[in-house]
Order: sequence, then C-alpha cells, then structure tokens
Amino acid sequence: MTHSELFEKIVQKKSFLCVGLDAEIEKIPSFLLGEKNPIFEFNKRIIDATHEFAVAYKPNVAFYESEGTAGWSALSDTVNYIRENYPDIFIIADAKRGDIGNTSKMYAKAFFENMPFDAVTVAPYMGEDSITPFLSYKDKWAVLLALTSNKGADDFQYHDEDGIKLFERVLSISQKWGNKNNLMYVVGATKAEMLKDIRKLVPDHFLLVPGVGAQGGSLEDVVKYGMTGKCGLLVNSSRGIIFADSGTDFDVIASQKAKEIQLEMEKYLLQRNLI
Amino acid sequence: MTHSELFEKIVQKKSFLCVGLDAEIEKIPSFLLGEKNPIFEFNKRIIDATHEFAVAYKPNVAFYESEGTAGWSALSDTVNYIRENYPDIFIIADAKRGDIGNTSKMYAKAFFENMPFDAVTVAPYMGEDSITPFLSYKDKWAVLLALTSNKGADDFQYHDEDGIKLFERVLSISQKWGNKNNLMYVVGATKAEMLKDIRKLVPDHFLLVPGVGAQGGSLEDVVKYGMTGKCGLLVNSSRGIIFADSGTDFDVIASQKAKEIQLEMEKYLLQRNLI
Repeated sequence: MTHSELFEKIVQKKSFLCVGLDAEIEKIPSFLLGEKNPIFEFNKRIIDATHEFAVAYKPNVAFYESEGTAGWSALSDTVNYIRENYPDIFIIADAKRGDIGNTSKMYAKAFFENMPFDAVTVAPYMGEDSITPFLSYKDKWAVLLALTSNKGADDFQYHDEDGIKLFERVLSISQKWGNKNNLMYVVGATKAEMLKDIRKLVPDHFLLVPGVGAQGGSLEDVVKYGMTGKCGLLVNSSRGIIFADSGTDFDVIASQKAKEIQLEMEKYLLQRNLI
Repeated sequence: MTHSELFEKIVQKKSFLCVGLDAEIEKIPSFLLGEKNPIFEFNKRIIDATHEFAVAYKPNVAFYESEGTAGWSALSDTVNYIRENYPDIFIIADAKRGDIGNTSKMYAKAFFENMPFDAVTVAPYMGEDSITPFLSYKDKWAVLLALTSNKGADDFQYHDEDGIKLFERVLSISQKWGNKNNLMYVVGATKAEMLKDIRKLVPDHFLLVPGVGAQGGSLEDVVKYGMTGKCGLLVNSSRGIIFADSGTDFDVIASQKAKEIQLEMEKYLLQRNLI
C-alpha cells in the first residue's frame, strides 16, 4: 500500500483509527477461555465488530509471544483473518525489532513473508543496516520509533547534540533510507505539542500515534499539531476499545467505542476539508 | 546466576566463550533438512560438540522467528535441551526486545517464564520502564545494547551531548536501574579500543562482546582493553563455529573451532592470573 492509497482508505472510512490488538490472555473475557484458541476468538470478534470504523489494526507481538507457539499461531491466524475478510485494512506488527543487517532480514521475513503484515515497528538504536531490510519489500513499511509515549522516553530520546535531539536525528537521518511510501514514525500522543516541530522535519510522512486514551493523550491536540493535507496520521487505541467491557457483548461495546473515536475523527477530517 | 557464579563457571571451564546459535535454515547442512525438526537437530549436535568449551549459548531469536511456530518450537526445544543436559551453561536470548513497561513485561514472561533463559538482550531507546521488567526476576539478566558491532552503530550511538555520547549515557544511566548481578552490556569487538574508556564507566559489569571472527574483531584486543579481575567478558562467536563446515561431521569441526578459541581464552586467563 502506498502513501496515497492509505490516504484513500482514510477518506473512504472517514477514519484514521488504528485498533491495537493487545490481546493479553489475562484481560480477555473469561467466558472465551474455554475456546480452543481464545486469543484468536477474542480478536476475531473485536475485528468483526470494529473493522467498519478502523483503517488499521496493530497487534503488539509481545502479547502473543508471551503465550509461546500457541500465541504465534494466534498472531498468524489473526493477521490472515484480517487479510482474507477485510483486505483493505492496513496491518502493523508492533514488534519493535532491529538487529544487524543479516539478522534484521530474518525479522522482515517473519512479518512480511511468513505473515501478510503491511508494516513492522522497528527500533532505531542500531542504525541504517538494522532498518533497511524492512524497506526493501515492495508496498511494505517500516514504522520507526522516534518519540515514544512512555516515561522512559525521557532517558535518551532528548539527548541533545548541538540543538538536535536524538529523536530529531532519527527523523532526519532515516529519511535517507526510505521515503513517505515505505517509512512512517511512532510519535506518542502524550507529546502532542511537539508534533508542531516534528512536522517541520517530516512534513509528509505518516505518523503512528499511540497514547490517546488510556495513556492520556488528546486526539484533538494530535490533529491540531500533526495532521497534514493527506491526513498523515494513524492514531492507535488499544485498551480503551478492546477491553472496554468484559461481558458477553464485549464486542458490541468495543464497536461503540471505536465508532465514538471514528466520529470524532470524521469531524476533524471535515474541518480540514479532507473528506 | 550471579556475577560471582558466572565467574566461577569461567574459571571451571577456562573459557569465556559464548556460542551463537544463529541456526539459519538455509545455512545448516543439507543432510539435516530431512529431519522432523532440522534446526533443533542441528543445534543439539552443535551443543553436544561444543559445550565443553563454552560457558554460554546465545540463540538469536530472529533466525527462529523467521520459521514461524516451527522455529519457536525449535528455540524452546533448544533452550530446554541445554538446561536439562548442561545445567551450568548460561543461556542468552538474543532478542533485542523493548517496549513500554506493561508490554516489556510480556517479553520478560516469554523468555524467563515460558522458556528457561538466563538473560535477554534489550534495546535502550525507550528507556527505563522498557528495561526494568527484565531486571525484576531473581538470578536473571538484561543485556543492554550499548555500542554495537554493525556499521549502523555510527548513526546514533555516538550522538554527543556535552562530551557524553549516547552509548556512554546508556552505560551510565542504566546503572541506576540494575547492578552487576542482573545487568550486562553489549559492546562490539569491532570497537575493542573503546573498551578502555567503557571500563571507566562500567568497571565491573560483564560485557557481551559480539563481532570477533566473521565481523573482524580481535579477541586479543578485547581482552587487553576489556578484561576485569573477574573476567567480565563473554565473547560470542557464531558463524565461525557453527557454520565452519557443512559436511556430515560439521559438529566435529565446530568442536575444533570452539576448542581453538577456548585455548586462546585459557592463555589470556592464565596471563591475568584468573585461573
């Protein structure tokens, strides 16, 4: 999927919502635990209930990996289910991988060849050769960590060389490795005001924005400071949607929560004359 | 395993060799491909042939992940095989994980609870809360990336704030999170001379040193600049041992290669009066 195609999906759906499929086994409704593959069953119901309001899904791989081979099967089943039933949806493996070149190639193979993901989140610390293997696949994307939404972001990401902070250097240098059609960036919603300066460095690239909702970020501020003429935003919500309710109609409640966010997004897209 | 216990193993084995189990399916001897679980069969023979000369094994998770659930089974079988047959060996999951706190917890669970690894390599970019979940397990270790052996290390790791480079900041700040009994650092052998200054920041911590052999680093230089009074080094070799030969006696050749390195290590340990 190219930058333009992703924007087209946003226009069609009137939404730039990414639903985080962080299917932690201890948080999914207990009545599902008797199923053969409870994580997949949970995801399937969440996906069927929310796909109308979302342009993207983002399973965080840690929650699957923590369940061993059963978890990996659930991850694979989930991404295949989305691809088969809702082929227009953009699917991100939130894996935060990165290793020396020949090893990163193996991670790219895992997510782009063995599973039909469109994108993988990657960590920048090891530099160019750790990222480029993810950029060499046609129509696939690397989503590079820039400014994350957690407390620990303060430890290194603001390290400042001659007025250039580390996350700014990540944004600048990485543009030599990829372009707006295969590279996007993670920028946490908890630092929404910083999007203003970030947009000077990456005026066109899509940003994947976690941290709205449970982590305290404001969608309105993210739009105010980060939206471009082609939207340029995928805003993620996980717990606020998927764990909004733990009863038998958890998917109905999830659908309502996703719709609420979609409607707010539609309002902003209209205000900006993008739809 | 504590810092002292790890040093005791090094004294017993007269070795600080870590064998990297980077079992890439396309590189393992072709006659093994007919086995039910070729990666595990390959690892088992490598382990049986080299355990005498090694204090640690380090499977790089990417090579297993790229084979899907079969790969994850092979990884799990491998670490369990080592634990059951050679209980004194230190086992590192080279996974380079790291995410926000509640998510890193899931990665720690994957490697420390579901599988009996002693240590996991972790990436520092997301800071404290991405690392501390790995430090909260008794007798387990986080191995934090500091200065890596690849070309891309130059892109960000030398970013310099008031004379303090990013990797130096990683070394300094992280010592508030853990100690020499649960935290070690990755420092590439290709930058062996830098170990002299690195030892000023981390005089006692173990360093996991990749890059000797195939990547061009010198064991002699690593020892010269990095060895402490309790050794303080785990030097990794992967391809130079495990893929030294692809014939039916690949394990015999691997054993010889491991022994050559062990003998060189023994010489250095003797020179320093550590054994």
